Amino acid sequence: MIRIGLVGLGKIAHDQHLPALAGDPRFSLVAAASHGRPTHGDLPVFHDIDDLLANGPALDAVALCTPPQVRRETALAALRAGKHVFLEKPPGVTVGEVHELAAVARDQGVTLFTSWHSRFAAGVPQAKAWLAKRRLRKLAIEWREDVRRWHPGQAWIWQAGGMGVFDPAINALSILTEIMPEEVFVTGAKLQVPENVQAPIAGHVDITTLSGVPVTADLDFLQTGPQTWDITAWTDDGVLKLSLGGAELTIDGQAIPVGENREYPGLYDRFATLIAEGRSEVDVRPLSLVADAFLVGDRERVEAFVE
Amino acid sequence: MIRIGLVGLGKIAHDQHLPALAGDPRFSLVAAASHGRPTHGDLPVFHDIDDLLANGPALDAVALCTPPQVRRETALAALRAGKHVFLEKPPGVTVGEVHELAAVARDQGVTLFTSWHSRFAAGVPQAKAWLAKRRLRKLAIEWREDVRRWHPGQAWIWQAGGMGVFDPAINALSILTEIMPEEVFVTGAKLQVPENVQAPIAGHVDITTLSGVPVTADLDFLQTGPQTWDITAWTDDGVLKLSLGGAELTIDGQAIPVGENREYPGLYDRFATLIAEGRSEVDVRPLSLVADAFLVGDRERVEAFVE
Repeated sequence: MIRIGLVGLGKIAHDQHLPALAGDPRFSLVAAASHGRPTHGDLPVFHDIDDLLANGPALDAVALCTPPQVRRETALAALRAGKHVFLEKPPGVTVGEVHELAAVARDQGVTLFTSWHSRFAAGVPQAKAWLAKRRLRKLAIEWREDVRRWHPGQAWIWQAGGMGVFDPAINALSILTEIMPEEVFVTGAKLQVPENVQAPIAGHVDITTLSGVPVTADLDFLQTGPQTWDITAWTDDGVLKLSLGGAELTIDGQAIPVGENREYPGLYDRFATLIAEGRSEVDVRPLSLVADAFLVGDRERVEAFVE
Repeated sequence: MIRIGLVGLGKIAHDQHLPALAGDPRFSLVAAASHGRPTHGDLPVFHDIDDLLANGPALDAVALCTPPQVRRETALAALRAGKHVFLEKPPGVTVGEVHELAAVARDQGVTLFTSWHSRFAAGVPQAKAWLAKRRLRKLAIEWREDVRRWHPGQAWIWQAGGMGVFDPAINALSILTEIMPEEVFVTGAKLQVPENVQAPIAGHVDITTLSGVPVTADLDFLQTGPQTWDITAWTDDGVLKLSLGGAELTIDGQAIPVGENREYPGLYDRFATLIAEGRSEVDVRPLSLVADAFLVGDRERVEAFVE
């Protein structure tokens, strides 16, 4: 039994982490930490990671669901205390800090898991297996959602390090780096940044592979009505489409049965396995793609965003 | 004798590469490529890398001195033709593309060298050796130069991928990553970007190490009068200062003899050695620091830059 503490009790903790932990018999949720210290049933809630480590019950692991801007210090405290660490996505605000966390986990002999929940969407494993056997011609990501609906009051998403529309889009990039038969890299980007915030509200990223397969990503944070989280891949033997963030799969328009979408249960299953095997899983590639898009991207100022 | 071609005949080629190659008996400069096709004595000059490879004399290696925005395609063509490749700094416009070039070099069995000329400044080796034996308290980079004086007419520097003031500042970051006893990572940045261009004209970057040593970088592209390329390190046993981009070294205010500054001769010496040993040297850390600064940095729009 892995005794785990949850740091950060915001939307993602309530929507995903608490139900996933409740459903996995290998974990026992013994405490949480949150600045607001909201109560959560009988769960003891501490102020922050230091309070949790000093005054909380004995722990084997912590899962960090705080905004990414404070993830490094929290993760460092937990790793240095010898705890296994599950990082929500993105694993940090810079690529460099994630590499450093990995070094600390190695030194401490504990597990660090950079979780990418969309890789555990129901259609992703079959999409990967199908693409591995075909010649890819091009791939298009369309990730368009309504920020007001999915990220209400999340001021951090607009601040430096919050990444704006790349906070959801990094999910697509995590699927991309999982299913592509070849490594990908950014060749250009256009980013629209509202004049009153730091992070892009829309964008287009051009990506390619060494063999020259063109990949495009069209991102928008202002889409109302039906929401779009699609990845379409054209091959020499048909067209594959992942929809609903990877939960649905079609090939040449035919729906493929993929089973129930169990992203967070899948993540905690992987985390338990990594701990049991004494391994870490640290993959910064989705974040590196965003960093490269920010490095090489053209920025355009657009009208202010008011929630 | 390494038969080498020079791609790009701009300011840096004339100021540095041509004299360095002329002074190194292991290299024979046999051709060049430049869109403008300026003549250069008896040297045959081709239109671009494809023209050079197809119609030029036999080559073992190429050195790329083009603006970074076109470096990847040029490097790929050369590597795929089996040539050793010397990349001017920065080695690309994204971190990802440099990793891909390294993979191609491995596949082809040729040398790829991501050159960082400032690491070959006269004072750098002694600074590194001195710091390795002391406890570092803090380090400050001040890199302030006059863009109009050093980069006349270089429109590419202001475009996306040109990095603005980080084009010179990456020299400081290349020294930093060479002399620091510990790995460094970015924790925050403030970037000033003129309203008519894409790249920052000034900035401040906060960097740290796992043990918590604070590193700051203050960057300005509008300094007239005396120019500043200084790195100061405070230790438990004195203060070290590298000035003039690493060419001069003082410890507690006393000048330390470091010999003549031979940055580009040093680079070509290293390139010849790497080729002889059948190895590559690919270090993306300075560029990764810039990418992370762009990813996490706060941007402020400042007045238009007019050269």
